[in-house]
Amino acid sequence: MLVGIGLMPHGNPVLEPPDEETERLAEVLRRIGGEFRDADSYVLISPHNVRISDHLGVVLAENLVSWLGFEGKELPGEWKTDRELAEKIYRAEKEAGMPVVDLNFAALSGEYSRWPLSWGELIPLQFLERKPLVLMTPSRGVSRETLVRFGEILGEVLEREEKRVALIISADHGHGHDEKGPYGKVKESEEYDRLIMKLINEDRLEELLSIPEDLVRKALVDSYWQMLIMLGAMRKAEFELKASAYACPTYFGMAGALWVRK
Amino acid sequence: MLVGIGLMPHGNPVLEPPDEETERLAEVLRRIGGEFRDADSYVLISPHNVRISDHLGVVLAENLVSWLGFEGKELPGEWKTDRELAEKIYRAEKEAGMPVVDLNFAALSGEYSRWPLSWGELIPLQFLERKPLVLMTPSRGVSRETLVRFGEILGEVLEREEKRVALIISADHGHGHDEKGPYGKVKESEEYDRLIMKLINEDRLEELLSIPEDLVRKALVDSYWQMLIMLGAMRKAEFELKASAYACPTYFGMAGALWVRK
Repeated sequence: MLVGIGLMPHGNPVLEPPDEETERLAEVLRRIGGEFRDADSYVLISPHNVRISDHLGVVLAENLVSWLGFEGKELPGEWKTDRELAEKIYRAEKEAGMPVVDLNFAALSGEYSRWPLSWGELIPLQFLERKPLVLMTPSRGVSRETLVRFGEILGEVLEREEKRVALIISADHGHGHDEKGPYGKVKESEEYDRLIMKLINEDRLEELLSIPEDLVRKALVDSYWQMLIMLGAMRKAEFELKASAYACPTYFGMAGALWVRK
Repeated sequence: MLVGIGLMPHGNPVLEPPDEETERLAEVLRRIGGEFRDADSYVLISPHNVRISDHLGVVLAENLVSWLGFEGKELPGEWKTDRELAEKIYRAEKEAGMPVVDLNFAALSGEYSRWPLSWGELIPLQFLERKPLVLMTPSRGVSRETLVRFGEILGEVLEREEKRVALIISADHGHGHDEKGPYGKVKESEEYDRLIMKLINEDRLEELLSIPEDLVRKALVDSYWQMLIMLGAMRKAEFELKASAYACPTYFGMAGALWVRK
Protein backbone atom coordinates (compact mmCIF):
# COMPACT_ATOMS: atom_id res chain seq x y z
CA MET A 1 0.00 0.00 0.00
CA LEU A 2 1.18 3.48 -0.84
CA VAL A 3 1.03 5.21 2.54
CA GLY A 4 2.09 8.63 1.39
CA ILE A 5 4.34 10.80 -0.70
CA GLY A 6 7.21 13.10 0.19
CA LEU A 7 8.42 15.71 -2.27
CA MET A 8 11.95 16.48 -1.08
CA PRO A 9 14.73 18.77 -2.33
CA HIS A 10 18.33 17.68 -2.73
CA GLY A 11 20.21 20.93 -2.15
CA ASN A 12 22.92 21.09 0.50
CA PRO A 13 21.34 24.13 2.27
CA VAL A 14 18.58 22.03 3.87
CA LEU A 15 21.26 20.22 5.89
CA GLU A 16 22.37 23.45 7.59
CA PRO A 17 19.64 25.99 6.92
CA PRO A 18 21.11 29.48 6.47
CA ASP A 19 17.79 31.32 7.04
CA GLU A 20 14.32 30.93 8.56
CA GLU A 21 12.64 30.00 5.31
CA THR A 22 15.05 27.13 4.74
CA GLU A 23 14.67 26.11 8.38
CA ARG A 24 10.90 25.86 7.84
CA LEU A 25 11.57 23.71 4.77
CA ALA A 26 13.89 21.45 6.78
CA GLU A 27 11.13 21.15 9.39
CA VAL A 28 8.77 19.80 6.69
CA LEU A 29 11.47 17.33 5.63
CA ARG A 30 11.85 16.12 9.21
CA ARG A 31 8.08 15.76 9.38
CA ILE A 32 8.17 13.59 6.22
CA GLY A 33 10.77 11.41 7.94
CA GLY A 34 8.61 11.16 11.07
CA GLU A 35 5.45 10.35 9.12
CA PHE A 36 7.12 7.53 7.20
CA ARG A 37 8.91 6.02 10.20
CA ASP A 38 6.41 3.14 10.04
CA ALA A 39 6.85 2.44 6.33
CA ASP A 40 8.46 -0.86 5.31
CA SER A 41 10.21 0.50 2.21
CA TYR A 42 10.64 3.65 0.18
CA VAL A 43 10.43 4.07 -3.55
CA LEU A 44 12.86 6.91 -4.28
CA ILE A 45 12.83 8.67 -7.66
CA SER A 46 15.91 10.78 -8.27
CA PRO A 47 17.01 12.94 -11.21
CA HIS A 48 20.71 12.83 -10.24
CA ASN A 49 21.43 9.15 -10.50
CA VAL A 50 21.63 7.39 -13.87
CA ARG A 51 20.39 9.64 -16.66
CA ILE A 52 19.11 7.93 -19.78
CA SER A 53 17.66 9.96 -22.68
CA ASP A 54 14.62 7.87 -23.43
CA HIS A 55 14.23 5.16 -20.81
CA LEU A 56 13.31 5.18 -17.15
CA GLY A 57 15.36 2.99 -14.82
CA VAL A 58 14.69 0.66 -11.89
CA VAL A 59 17.80 -0.22 -9.87
CA LEU A 60 17.96 -3.91 -8.96
CA ALA A 61 21.50 -3.85 -7.53
CA GLU A 62 21.40 -5.11 -3.95
CA ASN A 63 23.63 -2.56 -2.26
CA LEU A 64 23.21 1.21 -2.68
CA VAL A 65 26.41 2.99 -1.74
CA SER A 66 27.17 6.69 -1.22
CA TRP A 67 29.47 7.87 -4.00
CA LEU A 68 29.07 11.49 -5.06
CA GLY A 69 28.38 14.56 -2.95
CA PHE A 70 27.78 18.08 -4.29
CA GLU A 71 30.33 20.81 -3.61
CA GLY A 72 32.34 18.55 -1.35
CA LYS A 73 29.43 17.62 0.95
CA GLU A 74 30.07 13.91 1.48
CA LEU A 75 27.32 11.89 3.12
CA PRO A 76 28.61 8.35 3.56
CA GLY A 77 26.32 5.38 4.01
CA GLU A 78 24.90 2.22 2.49
CA TRP A 79 21.33 1.18 1.93
CA LYS A 80 19.73 -2.08 0.79
CA THR A 81 17.48 -2.43 -2.21
CA ASP A 82 14.04 -3.92 -1.63
CA ARG A 83 14.75 -6.26 -4.49
CA GLU A 84 11.45 -8.11 -4.41
CA LEU A 85 9.54 -4.85 -4.80
CA ALA A 86 12.01 -3.50 -7.37
CA GLU A 87 11.51 -6.60 -9.52
CA LYS A 88 7.73 -6.34 -9.23
CA ILE A 89 7.81 -2.73 -10.37
CA TYR A 90 10.24 -3.42 -13.23
CA ARG A 91 8.20 -6.37 -14.48
CA ALA A 92 4.88 -4.49 -14.29
CA GLU A 93 6.27 -1.49 -16.18
CA LYS A 94 7.91 -3.72 -18.76
CA GLU A 95 4.75 -5.77 -19.30
CA ALA A 96 2.79 -2.55 -19.78
CA GLY A 97 5.17 -1.60 -22.60
CA MET A 98 6.83 1.26 -20.75
CA PRO A 99 10.33 2.35 -21.87
CA VAL A 100 12.15 1.03 -18.81
CA VAL A 101 15.41 -0.76 -18.07
CA ASP A 102 16.52 -2.74 -15.04
CA LEU A 103 19.88 -1.63 -13.67
CA ASN A 104 22.46 -3.75 -11.98
CA PHE A 105 26.22 -3.21 -11.65
CA ALA A 106 29.23 -5.54 -11.66
CA ALA A 107 27.41 -8.67 -10.41
CA LEU A 108 23.77 -9.72 -10.55
CA SER A 109 23.55 -10.46 -6.83
CA GLY A 110 25.59 -10.61 -3.64
CA GLU A 111 28.16 -8.21 -2.22
CA TYR A 112 29.39 -7.11 -5.66
CA SER A 113 25.90 -6.12 -6.79
CA ARG A 114 26.38 -2.45 -5.95
CA TRP A 115 25.03 0.88 -7.13
CA PRO A 116 26.36 4.42 -6.57
CA LEU A 117 24.32 7.17 -4.91
CA SER A 118 24.67 10.91 -5.46
CA TRP A 119 23.44 13.97 -3.57
CA GLY A 120 20.13 13.52 -5.41
CA GLU A 121 19.38 10.55 -3.19
CA LEU A 122 21.66 11.18 -0.22
CA ILE A 123 20.15 14.49 0.85
CA PRO A 124 16.53 13.26 1.06
CA LEU A 125 17.82 10.10 2.78
CA GLN A 126 19.34 12.23 5.57
CA PHE A 127 15.78 12.96 6.72
CA LEU A 128 14.45 9.41 6.45
CA GLU A 129 14.98 6.40 8.71
CA ARG A 130 17.11 3.77 7.06
CA LYS A 131 14.85 1.30 5.25
CA PRO A 132 15.05 -0.80 2.08
CA LEU A 133 14.76 1.30 -1.07
CA VAL A 134 13.65 0.96 -4.64
CA LEU A 135 15.69 3.56 -6.53
CA MET A 136 14.20 4.71 -9.81
CA THR A 137 15.23 7.28 -12.40
CA PRO A 138 13.01 9.51 -14.55
CA SER A 139 13.75 10.48 -18.14
CA ARG A 140 13.34 13.77 -19.95
CA GLY A 141 13.05 12.23 -23.40
CA VAL A 142 9.77 10.36 -23.00
CA SER A 143 6.34 11.97 -23.35
CA ARG A 144 4.38 13.50 -20.48
CA GLU A 145 1.67 10.91 -21.00
CA THR A 146 4.20 8.09 -20.68
CA LEU A 147 5.60 9.52 -17.45
CA VAL A 148 2.12 9.77 -15.94
CA ARG A 149 1.24 6.27 -17.14
CA PHE A 150 4.51 4.98 -15.67
CA GLY A 151 3.42 6.52 -12.37
CA GLU A 152 -0.03 4.96 -12.61
CA ILE A 153 1.48 1.51 -13.08
CA LEU A 154 3.83 2.16 -10.16
CA GLY A 155 0.80 3.20 -8.09
CA GLU A 156 -1.04 0.03 -9.07
CA VAL A 157 1.88 -2.17 -8.00
CA LEU A 158 2.13 -0.33 -4.68
CA GLU A 159 -1.62 -0.60 -4.09
CA ARG A 160 -1.44 -4.39 -4.52
CA GLU A 161 1.52 -4.58 -2.15
CA GLU A 162 1.11 -5.76 1.44
CA LYS A 163 4.10 -3.72 2.54
CA ARG A 164 3.60 -0.11 3.57
CA VAL A 165 5.53 1.89 0.99
CA ALA A 166 6.27 5.64 0.90
CA LEU A 167 7.06 7.35 -2.39
CA ILE A 168 9.85 9.91 -2.22
CA ILE A 169 10.29 12.34 -5.10
CA SER A 170 13.69 14.05 -5.10
CA ALA A 171 13.35 17.34 -6.95
CA ASP A 172 14.70 20.85 -7.13
CA HIS A 173 12.85 23.46 -9.15
CA GLY A 174 13.97 26.55 -11.07
CA HIS A 175 17.74 27.02 -11.16
CA GLY A 176 17.79 30.64 -12.40
CA HIS A 177 17.07 32.57 -9.21
CA ASP A 178 20.37 34.37 -8.74
CA GLU A 179 22.22 36.73 -11.04
CA LYS A 180 25.47 35.45 -9.60
CA GLY A 181 24.42 31.79 -9.84
CA PRO A 182 25.71 29.44 -12.54
CA TYR A 183 22.62 30.02 -14.71
CA GLY A 184 22.04 33.71 -13.97
CA LYS A 185 18.65 35.22 -13.21
CA VAL A 186 15.78 33.86 -15.32
CA LYS A 187 12.25 35.14 -14.77
CA GLU A 188 10.75 31.78 -15.72
CA SER A 189 12.39 30.11 -12.69
CA GLU A 190 10.35 32.31 -10.36
CA GLU A 191 7.22 31.80 -12.44
CA TYR A 192 7.57 28.01 -12.46
CA ASP A 193 8.35 27.74 -8.75
CA ARG A 194 5.38 29.95 -7.80
CA LEU A 195 3.09 27.87 -10.01
CA ILE A 196 4.34 24.56 -8.57
CA MET A 197 3.67 25.73 -5.01
CA LYS A 198 0.18 26.89 -6.04
CA LEU A 199 -0.61 23.51 -7.63
CA ILE A 200 0.66 21.72 -4.50
CA ASN A 201 -1.14 23.94 -1.98
CA GLU A 202 -4.42 24.19 -3.89
CA ASP A 203 -4.63 20.46 -4.70
CA ARG A 204 -4.39 21.13 -8.43
CA LEU A 205 -1.58 18.72 -9.35
CA GLU A 206 -3.46 17.49 -12.43
CA GLU A 207 -2.62 20.89 -13.92
CA LEU A 208 1.04 19.90 -14.04
CA LEU A 209 0.10 18.48 -17.44
CA SER A 210 -0.80 21.90 -18.81
CA ILE A 211 2.45 23.68 -17.90
CA PRO A 212 3.93 24.85 -21.22
CA GLU A 213 7.00 22.95 -22.39
CA ASP A 214 8.67 26.29 -22.98
CA LEU A 215 8.25 27.33 -19.34
CA VAL A 216 9.67 24.02 -18.06
CA ARG A 217 12.69 24.41 -20.31
CA LYS A 218 13.40 28.08 -19.66
CA ALA A 219 12.87 27.75 -15.90
CA LEU A 220 15.81 25.27 -15.79
CA VAL A 221 14.06 22.83 -13.54
CA ASP A 222 15.02 19.50 -12.11
CA SER A 223 11.58 18.44 -10.96
CA TYR A 224 9.01 18.27 -13.72
CA TRP A 225 9.48 14.72 -15.01
CA GLN A 226 9.50 12.95 -11.66
CA MET A 227 6.51 15.05 -10.54
CA LEU A 228 4.56 13.66 -13.49
CA ILE A 229 5.39 10.14 -12.29
CA MET A 230 4.21 11.22 -8.82
CA LEU A 231 0.97 12.52 -10.34
CA GLY A 232 0.31 9.15 -11.96
CA ALA A 233 0.93 7.25 -8.72
CA MET A 234 -1.28 9.66 -6.73
CA ARG A 235 -4.22 8.93 -9.04
CA LYS A 236 -4.48 5.44 -7.56
CA ALA A 237 -5.66 6.49 -4.07
CA GLU A 238 -6.75 9.56 -2.09
CA PHE A 239 -4.09 11.67 -0.43
CA GLU A 240 -4.17 14.71 1.79
CA LEU A 241 -1.53 17.44 1.94
CA LYS A 242 -0.20 17.66 5.51
CA ALA A 243 2.61 20.16 5.11
CA SER A 244 4.50 22.13 2.50
CA ALA A 245 7.25 24.72 2.35
CA TYR A 246 9.44 26.51 -0.19
CA ALA A 247 12.85 28.12 0.14
CA CYS A 248 15.38 29.59 -2.21
CA PRO A 249 18.50 30.43 -0.19
CA THR A 250 20.86 30.27 -3.21
CA TYR A 251 20.22 30.04 -6.97
CA PHE A 252 17.73 27.14 -7.06
CA GLY A 253 14.26 26.72 -5.64
CA MET A 254 13.56 23.93 -3.15
CA ALA A 255 10.15 22.60 -2.16
CA GLY A 256 9.03 20.12 0.45
CA ALA A 257 5.56 18.58 0.61
CA LEU A 258 4.02 15.74 2.58
CA TRP A 259 0.89 13.92 1.49
CA VAL A 260 -0.59 11.09 3.51
CA ARG A 261 -3.27 8.62 2.57
CA LYS A 262 -6.76 9.70 3.53
CA MET B 1 39.68 3.54 -38.19
CA LEU B 2 39.62 0.36 -36.15
CA VAL B 3 43.33 -0.41 -35.75
CA GLY B 4 42.96 -3.63 -33.84
CA ILE B 5 41.27 -5.65 -31.17
CA GLY B 6 42.43 -6.84 -27.78
CA LEU B 7 40.60 -9.63 -25.98
CA MET B 8 41.59 -9.15 -22.34
CA PRO B 9 40.70 -10.95 -19.10
CA HIS B 10 39.70 -9.14 -15.92
CA GLY B 11 40.89 -11.55 -13.23
CA ASN B 12 43.22 -10.33 -10.50
CA PRO B 13 45.83 -13.08 -11.18
CA VAL B 14 47.11 -11.39 -14.35
CA LEU B 15 48.35 -8.50 -12.20
CA GLU B 16 50.68 -10.79 -10.22
CA PRO B 17 50.94 -14.01 -12.22
CA PRO B 18 51.22 -17.02 -9.89
CA ASP B 19 52.55 -19.41 -12.57
CA GLU B 20 54.25 -19.51 -15.96
CA GLU B 21 51.04 -19.93 -17.93
CA THR B 22 49.56 -16.78 -16.38
CA GLU B 23 52.86 -14.97 -16.92
CA ARG B 24 52.64 -15.80 -20.64
CA LEU B 25 49.09 -14.45 -20.64
CA ALA B 26 50.25 -11.24 -18.94
CA GLU B 27 52.93 -10.95 -21.61
CA VAL B 28 50.21 -10.99 -24.32
CA LEU B 29 48.32 -8.31 -22.40
CA ARG B 30 51.45 -6.14 -22.25
CA ARG B 31 51.87 -6.70 -25.97
CA ILE B 32 48.29 -5.47 -26.55
CA GLY B 33 49.14 -2.35 -24.57
CA GLY B 34 52.30 -1.82 -26.63
CA GLU B 35 50.53 -2.37 -29.96
CA PHE B 36 47.83 0.17 -29.13
CA ARG B 37 50.18 2.81 -27.73
CA ASP B 38 49.55 4.84 -30.91
CA ALA B 39 45.74 4.62 -30.76
CA ASP B 40 43.79 7.82 -30.11
CA SER B 41 40.97 6.18 -28.15
CA TYR B 42 39.75 2.82 -26.96
CA VAL B 43 36.28 1.38 -27.15
CA LEU B 44 36.05 -0.86 -24.07
CA ILE B 45 33.24 -3.39 -23.72
CA SER B 46 32.88 -4.76 -20.22
CA PRO B 47 30.48 -7.28 -18.67
CA HIS B 48 31.04 -6.02 -15.11
CA ASN B 49 29.81 -2.48 -15.38
CA VAL B 50 26.11 -1.68 -15.74
CA ARG B 51 24.10 -4.81 -16.42
CA ILE B 52 20.77 -4.36 -18.19
CA SER B 53 18.63 -7.39 -19.12
CA ASP B 54 17.67 -6.38 -22.62
CA HIS B 55 19.56 -3.25 -23.64
CA LEU B 56 23.18 -2.53 -24.44
CA GLY B 57 24.69 0.63 -22.98
CA VAL B 58 26.99 3.41 -24.15
CA VAL B 59 28.43 5.53 -21.33
CA LEU B 60 28.38 9.25 -22.14
CA ALA B 61 29.45 10.44 -18.68
CA GLU B 62 32.60 12.55 -19.01
CA ASN B 63 34.65 11.15 -16.14
CA LEU B 64 35.21 7.44 -15.57
CA VAL B 65 36.25 6.82 -11.99
CA SER B 66 37.60 3.69 -10.26
CA TRP B 67 35.00 2.43 -7.80
CA LEU B 68 34.91 -1.31 -7.25
CA GLY B 69 37.76 -3.80 -7.03
CA PHE B 70 37.40 -7.57 -6.72
CA GLU B 71 38.49 -9.31 -3.54
CA GLY B 72 39.92 -6.12 -2.14
CA LYS B 73 42.17 -5.36 -5.11
CA GLU B 74 41.71 -1.60 -5.46
CA LEU B 75 43.05 0.02 -8.62
CA PRO B 76 42.49 3.77 -8.28
CA GLY B 77 42.41 6.08 -11.28
CA GLU B 78 40.29 8.28 -13.50
CA TRP B 79 39.82 8.21 -17.26
CA LYS B 80 38.05 10.56 -19.68
CA THR B 81 35.29 9.53 -22.02
CA ASP B 82 35.80 10.23 -25.72
CA ARG B 83 32.39 11.84 -25.74
CA GLU B 84 32.33 12.74 -29.40
CA LEU B 85 32.94 9.14 -30.39
CA ALA B 86 30.57 7.82 -27.72
CA GLU B 87 27.78 10.01 -29.08
CA LYS B 88 28.47 8.91 -32.66
CA ILE B 89 28.27 5.25 -31.65
CA TYR B 90 25.12 5.75 -29.57
CA ARG B 91 23.36 7.66 -32.35
CA ALA B 92 24.34 5.15 -35.04
CA GLU B 93 23.13 2.19 -32.96
CA LYS B 94 19.92 3.99 -32.03
CA GLU B 95 19.19 4.98 -35.64
CA ALA B 96 19.72 1.36 -36.68
CA GLY B 97 17.02 0.31 -34.22
CA MET B 98 19.37 -1.45 -31.82
CA PRO B 99 18.21 -1.89 -28.19
CA VAL B 100 20.66 0.59 -26.69
CA VAL B 101 20.62 3.26 -24.00
CA ASP B 102 22.94 6.19 -23.37
CA LEU B 103 24.23 6.35 -19.81
CA ASN B 104 25.08 9.42 -17.83
CA PHE B 105 25.18 9.93 -14.07
CA ALA B 106 24.30 12.85 -11.78
CA ALA B 107 24.91 15.65 -14.33
CA LEU B 108 24.85 15.68 -18.14
CA SER B 109 28.29 17.31 -18.42
CA GLY B 110 31.13 18.79 -16.41
CA GLU B 111 32.84 17.57 -13.27
CA TYR B 112 29.68 15.93 -11.88
CA SER B 113 29.17 13.85 -15.01
CA ARG B 114 30.85 10.77 -13.56
CA TRP B 115 30.67 7.03 -14.02
CA PRO B 116 31.96 4.21 -11.78
CA LEU B 117 34.43 1.57 -12.97
CA SER B 118 34.79 -1.97 -11.67
CA TRP B 119 37.48 -4.63 -11.99
CA GLY B 120 35.93 -5.52 -15.34
CA GLU B 121 37.38 -2.34 -16.79
CA LEU B 122 40.19 -1.58 -14.34
CA ILE B 123 42.19 -4.77 -14.91
CA PRO B 124 42.43 -4.46 -18.71
CA LEU B 125 43.18 -0.75 -18.26
CA GLN B 126 46.25 -1.61 -16.17
CA PHE B 127 47.89 -2.87 -19.37
CA LEU B 128 46.86 0.04 -21.60
CA GLU B 129 48.26 3.56 -21.84
CA ARG B 130 45.81 6.11 -20.52
CA LYS B 131 43.66 7.38 -23.39
CA PRO B 132 40.06 8.54 -23.82
CA LEU B 133 37.57 5.70 -23.65
CA VAL B 134 34.14 4.79 -24.89
CA LEU B 135 32.79 2.38 -22.30
CA MET B 136 30.04 0.07 -23.51
CA THR B 137 28.10 -2.76 -21.91
CA PRO B 138 26.79 -5.96 -23.51
CA SER B 139 23.49 -7.63 -22.64
CA ARG B 140 22.60 -11.28 -22.22
CA GLY B 141 18.93 -10.85 -23.00
CA VAL B 142 19.17 -9.80 -26.64
CA SER B 143 19.54 -12.24 -29.53
CA ARG B 144 22.87 -13.39 -30.94
CA GLU B 145 21.99 -11.79 -34.25
CA THR B 146 21.36 -8.45 -32.55
CA LEU B 147 24.69 -8.58 -30.73
CA VAL B 148 26.55 -9.27 -33.99
CA ARG B 149 24.59 -6.54 -35.79
CA PHE B 150 25.39 -4.14 -32.95
CA GLY B 151 29.05 -4.97 -33.50
CA GLU B 152 28.77 -4.43 -37.24
CA ILE B 153 27.31 -0.97 -36.71
CA LEU B 154 30.06 -0.22 -34.20
CA GLY B 155 32.60 -1.39 -36.78
CA GLU B 156 31.06 0.85 -39.44
CA VAL B 157 31.25 3.90 -37.17
CA LEU B 158 34.89 3.13 -36.34
CA GLU B 159 35.74 2.62 -40.00
CA ARG B 160 34.38 6.08 -40.86
CA GLU B 161 36.33 7.60 -37.98
CA GLU B 162 39.53 9.55 -38.58
CA LYS B 163 40.81 8.68 -35.14
CA ARG B 164 42.74 5.47 -34.64
CA VAL B 165 40.56 3.40 -32.31
CA ALA B 166 41.35 0.06 -30.63
CA LEU B 167 38.54 -2.21 -29.49
CA ILE B 168 39.06 -3.86 -26.12
CA ILE B 169 36.86 -6.77 -25.13
CA SER B 170 36.94 -7.52 -21.41
CA ALA B 171 36.02 -11.17 -20.92
CA ASP B 172 36.60 -14.16 -18.71
CA HIS B 173 35.48 -17.59 -19.85
CA GLY B 174 34.28 -20.71 -18.02
CA HIS B 175 33.94 -20.23 -14.25
CA GLY B 176 33.64 -23.91 -13.28
CA HIS B 177 37.26 -25.05 -13.38
CA ASP B 178 37.85 -25.81 -9.71
CA GLU B 179 36.05 -28.17 -7.36
CA LYS B 180 36.79 -25.77 -4.52
CA GLY B 181 35.76 -22.68 -6.51
CA PRO B 182 32.45 -20.86 -5.97
CA TYR B 183 30.80 -22.75 -8.87
CA GLY B 184 32.48 -26.13 -8.42
CA LYS B 185 33.90 -28.21 -11.27
CA VAL B 186 31.81 -28.19 -14.44
CA LYS B 187 33.00 -30.13 -17.48
CA GLU B 188 31.40 -27.60 -19.87
CA SER B 189 33.75 -24.85 -18.65
CA GLU B 190 36.74 -26.79 -19.96
CA GLU B 191 34.91 -27.64 -23.18
CA TYR B 192 33.91 -24.01 -23.84
CA ASP B 193 37.34 -22.60 -23.06
CA ARG B 194 39.09 -25.13 -25.29
CA LEU B 195 36.67 -24.35 -28.13
CA ILE B 196 37.12 -20.57 -27.74
CA MET B 197 40.91 -20.88 -27.99
CA LYS B 198 40.52 -23.10 -31.07
CA LEU B 199 38.23 -20.56 -32.77
CA ILE B 200 40.69 -17.75 -31.95
CA ASN B 201 43.82 -19.58 -33.02
CA GLU B 202 42.36 -21.16 -36.16
CA ASP B 203 40.68 -17.94 -37.37
CA ARG B 204 37.22 -19.50 -37.06
CA LEU B 205 35.47 -16.78 -35.03
CA GLU B 206 32.36 -16.93 -37.24
CA GLU B 207 31.70 -20.29 -35.56
CA LEU B 208 30.99 -18.48 -32.31
CA LEU B 209 27.45 -18.30 -33.67
CA SER B 210 27.06 -22.07 -33.68
CA ILE B 211 28.08 -22.67 -30.06
CA PRO B 212 25.03 -24.29 -28.42
CA GLU B 213 23.15 -22.06 -25.97
CA ASP B 214 23.24 -24.92 -23.52
CA LEU B 215 27.04 -25.02 -23.53
CA VAL B 216 27.32 -21.26 -23.01
CA ARG B 217 24.95 -21.47 -20.05
CA LYS B 218 26.43 -24.55 -18.40
CA ALA B 219 30.03 -23.38 -18.89
CA LEU B 220 29.24 -20.31 -16.69
CA VAL B 221 30.97 -17.85 -18.98
CA ASP B 222 31.43 -14.14 -18.89
CA SER B 223 32.60 -13.70 -22.46
CA TYR B 224 30.14 -14.91 -25.04
CA TRP B 225 27.97 -11.82 -25.58
CA GLN B 226 30.77 -9.28 -25.92
CA MET B 227 32.66 -11.68 -28.23
CA LEU B 228 29.64 -11.65 -30.56
CA ILE B 229 29.85 -7.84 -30.64
CA MET B 230 33.57 -8.21 -31.41
CA LEU B 231 32.74 -10.63 -34.23
CA GLY B 232 30.41 -8.09 -35.80
CA ALA B 233 33.00 -5.30 -35.62
CA MET B 234 35.72 -7.55 -37.06
CA ARG B 235 33.59 -8.24 -40.15
CA LYS B 236 34.17 -4.66 -41.28
CA ALA B 237 37.90 -5.01 -42.04
CA GLU B 238 40.66 -7.63 -42.22
CA PHE B 239 42.54 -8.50 -39.05
CA GLU B 240 45.44 -10.76 -38.27
CA LEU B 241 46.02 -12.61 -34.99
CA LYS B 242 49.39 -11.53 -33.55
CA ALA B 243 49.36 -13.25 -30.19
CA SER B 244 47.17 -15.33 -27.93
CA ALA B 245 47.39 -17.10 -24.59
CA TYR B 246 45.19 -18.89 -22.09
CA ALA B 247 45.58 -19.46 -18.38
CA CYS B 248 43.43 -20.83 -15.61
CA PRO B 249 45.29 -20.30 -12.34
CA THR B 250 42.13 -20.36 -10.18
CA TYR B 251 38.50 -21.32 -10.95
CA PHE B 252 37.92 -19.26 -14.12
CA GLY B 253 39.52 -19.35 -17.54
CA MET B 254 41.31 -16.25 -18.87
CA ALA B 255 42.25 -15.60 -22.48
CA GLY B 256 44.26 -12.87 -24.15
CA ALA B 257 44.35 -12.25 -27.88
CA LEU B 258 45.69 -9.46 -30.07
CA TRP B 259 44.46 -8.84 -33.60
CA VAL B 260 45.85 -6.03 -35.73
CA ARG B 261 44.59 -4.65 -38.99
CA LYS B 262 46.12 -6.30 -42.04
